[in-house]
Amino acid sequence: MPTSHTVYFVSESTGITAEAYGQSLLSQFDDTRFITRYTPFINTREKAQGLVSEIAHRAEAEGRKPIVFATMADEEINAMLQHAECHYFELFDRFMPDLVGVIGVQPSHKSGVSHGLVNLENYEARIETINYALNNDDGMRLNKFDMADVLLVGVSRSGKTPTCLYLALHFGLRAANYPITPEDFEKGELPDEVLAHKDKIFALTIDPERLAAIRELRRPGSDYASLRRCYKEVQMAQDMFHRHGMTVLDATTHSIEELASLIKKSL
Amino acid sequence: MPTSHTVYFVSESTGITAEAYGQSLLSQFDDTRFITRYTPFINTREKAQGLVSEIAHRAEAEGRKPIVFATMADEEINAMLQHAECHYFELFDRFMPDLVGVIGVQPSHKSGVSHGLVNLENYEARIETINYALNNDDGMRLNKFDMADVLLVGVSRSGKTPTCLYLALHFGLRAANYPITPEDFEKGELPDEVLAHKDKIFALTIDPERLAAIRELRRPGSDYASLRRCYKEVQMAQDMFHRHGMTVLDATTHSIEELASLIKKSL
Repeated sequence: MPTSHTVYFVSESTGITAEAYGQSLLSQFDDTRFITRYTPFINTREKAQGLVSEIAHRAEAEGRKPIVFATMADEEINAMLQHAECHYFELFDRFMPDLVGVIGVQPSHKSGVSHGLVNLENYEARIETINYALNNDDGMRLNKFDMADVLLVGVSRSGKTPTCLYLALHFGLRAANYPITPEDFEKGELPDEVLAHKDKIFALTIDPERLAAIRELRRPGSDYASLRRCYKEVQMAQDMFHRHGMTVLDATTHSIEELASLIKKSL
Repeated sequence: MPTSHTVYFVSESTGITAEAYGQSLLSQFDDTRFITRYTPFINTREKAQGLVSEIAHRAEAEGRKPIVFATMADEEINAMLQHAECHYFELFDRFMPDLVGVIGVQPSHKSGVSHGLVNLENYEARIETINYALNNDDGMRLNKFDMADVLLVGVSRSGKTPTCLYLALHFGLRAANYPITPEDFEKGELPDEVLAHKDKIFALTIDPERLAAIRELRRPGSDYASLRRCYKEVQMAQDMFHRHGMTVLDATTHSIEELASLIKKSL
């Protein structure tokens, strides 16, 4: 039994959904190796024919049919791929009949809607949240937190910026962040401008050894990256968080997506 | 026939996949209104029971069963939701039997793997690409383009930064960007530090009226935002792109995801 499978993520548009659901399914097979190929924008008969030929060549070269995960609203291209030399898994085929039964209307067969350009207002709103994350990052501005949906607080390099960017890009949330500074640690307290927005704060904590490893990459051999300092900062930060009854999330054990989803869910 | 349906996106973990495939399916129903609810981290029997109760209340209050899109590897919770007062659509149920037949091994029934914390190396590599995007944004640094996977070039506010961030966050690519400056326009040429990396460049163009509208939000009433200036910059930029045979993408008609997917596909 072969342990390596070629997998295509196919779509008329970005392929983001095909890749998301396909990877979710593949991730259930721990010991199997998958070689993935990303083929978005299969939106003409010519491109579809090109893909069908590529699949046929690969099937012959590898001695087995590749797996294809697709989102394909176009019925003609869907039919072409169904007859290709592959194990074809398509989202609409498997869900649409029952979903139509529930909703009671026919689908529009439009492609690329869920990740396409919806309208100018939506686009600009999205750019706005991304700009907000960038402009209210890392304590560069403390006077615009009233516009924030969330305010992330944590020691330097605990994962605040990537999480804010993800909250902006994926969830369209206005996410600011504030790094606890040496001055704050000296005072033993967060600034008033931050505490004024306690209701929006999500605090990030992190394992001190992990923090030291991350900081070592940034400033090798520095006191900033020393275990001693990291232990101290993490402890003092946690004291501040608990004193103010803040929601604390552990960046050590969560991916960016998990942190963002936990935050989004709490709103 | 009701035109508004309540839809839940349910998962043991982040719910990102459930939302992605669910939204893809819902986007096929143009004239139907959906009220969506995001319920990630349904990972204990208690939480599942809480959701089952909430669904029952909603079904009674609204006079019809809500739709649920789920990714649920846990068999016990899956069974609970299958028997809830909802139209239950679950990813693994609909794909796993056939996929197991193709791959030939049983699934591991682990949850949250595709958006979870894989390992420290992967996490740090990801943070690294995000930091790279942030540190090589908007022409702030011109001497690290050799480390880039892609270099986006375009006039100010054409969408370079959000696209670079998405390329980093979603595709793990090192994406730098360079804004064409007044000095470049005066010279009629891009800087050498940019041209040296022509092979990695993707140029973004944009409709001048759209550009003017975006710039007007940022600096109202300025020459920067004037139609006259926007037409001029876009034309001169396009001349530079064509002269150098660069790949040009239209930010006017594409979402951030579409631009990023087009770029990723071309690599």
